[in-house]
Amino acid sequence: MATTIIQGFELRTAMTAPYLDFWFDFASTYSYPAIMRVGALARREAVAVNFRPFLLGPIFKTQGWNTSPFNLYAAKGRHMWRDLERTCAGLGLEFRRPEPFPQSSVLAARIALVGLGDKWGEDFCRAVFTAEFAEGRRIDEPETMRGILEGLSADTVAVLEAAQTTAIKDRLRAETAKAQELEVFGAPSFCTADGELFWGNDRLEAALAWAKRTG
Amino acid sequence: MATTIIQGFELRTAMTAPYLDFWFDFASTYSYPAIMRVGALARREAVAVNFRPFLLGPIFKTQGWNTSPFNLYAAKGRHMWRDLERTCAGLGLEFRRPEPFPQSSVLAARIALVGLGDKWGEDFCRAVFTAEFAEGRRIDEPETMRGILEGLSADTVAVLEAAQTTAIKDRLRAETAKAQELEVFGAPSFCTADGELFWGNDRLEAALAWAKRTG
Repeated sequence: MATTIIQGFELRTAMTAPYLDFWFDFASTYSYPAIMRVGALARREAVAVNFRPFLLGPIFKTQGWNTSPFNLYAAKGRHMWRDLERTCAGLGLEFRRPEPFPQSSVLAARIALVGLGDKWGEDFCRAVFTAEFAEGRRIDEPETMRGILEGLSADTVAVLEAAQTTAIKDRLRAETAKAQELEVFGAPSFCTADGELFWGNDRLEAALAWAKRTG
Repeated sequence: MATTIIQGFELRTAMTAPYLDFWFDFASTYSYPAIMRVGALARREAVAVNFRPFLLGPIFKTQGWNTSPFNLYAAKGRHMWRDLERTCAGLGLEFRRPEPFPQSSVLAARIALVGLGDKWGEDFCRAVFTAEFAEGRRIDEPETMRGILEGLSADTVAVLEAAQTTAIKDRLRAETAKAQELEVFGAPSFCTADGELFWGNDRLEAALAWAKRTG
């Protein structure tokens, strides 16, 4: 745990308050139930959750995959769609299979990085997953992004411009590199302050409990 | 649901009592916590569970894999070992990483098929997983199998002979083919009477609930 001295004050307490990094890709199927669940569970456990969108594509490429493994391995893919449907039904979440799958998540991830520096970031993230997995909308179309931003307290034109700056593009690349450095190989993934990695919507509770105990 | 008429009696009730097929490979890591949990959970839900050992190897081969995906994808493998360790700790189960991994499960599966036609089959299955994942013993060595059988009410010599008969070898091949036909792509997997497939130790509860509701 890092201890930083700023103007004579130890920030140990602030820096080691329980937190969890929540790594997700907007195209990732099980990131949908995870992002819809994480807020309430994290509040209950008093764990701060950092939303960290990244891109799975470059990580899949290093594993030799040019698309989702759910497309490459047909039986695994068919089970996943059925299982996701059952999981969403169990949570009372609307579900509609996105077509095509996967959709490029680059634009959504860049906008999210803009928004997570502002107040509307987390709402934007949830709205993107709802558009994609509940409403059958295309998240790779700027029109969908525009519609979502207009429903939030965001300056749509300014945000879409900011999302295309080199600074934001570089930041998304750096976040993806960081995820890979942490050995993230799928999404959602959860990483604690002491470096424990948990993969999958099924591990959200365990990751929060770990963060709380060791944070 | 099949209804069979035998000598004028409808067997509908007997044939549709809730049951769940539990497909596992003795080399499969998450089959270890699953097999140690399934008995008590199934009794609580009043669901009959059929132990169905099979071989993942031939199924992995059709996916282009010559060994476990946990060996082929290093980050995924490292996460799995750590996650399995955490899972076992949470359940109070001893855990020791098998070396080498995976070990051939052919001999254990053949003996299990002999035993599951007798009283000692399920105890044998659990004992094999304990030997492999708690005690660091080699399940691909006949000596380990002999030791386990001697601790059960089995005629060791007769059983080892039966396990090498063409009938049992063919049966294991047929079970593996059946698993593939059901679209089993990993282990453990659970399959209900109405054809729902659930993959993974994490889905055991959901599979039992489904079997109970629809059985």
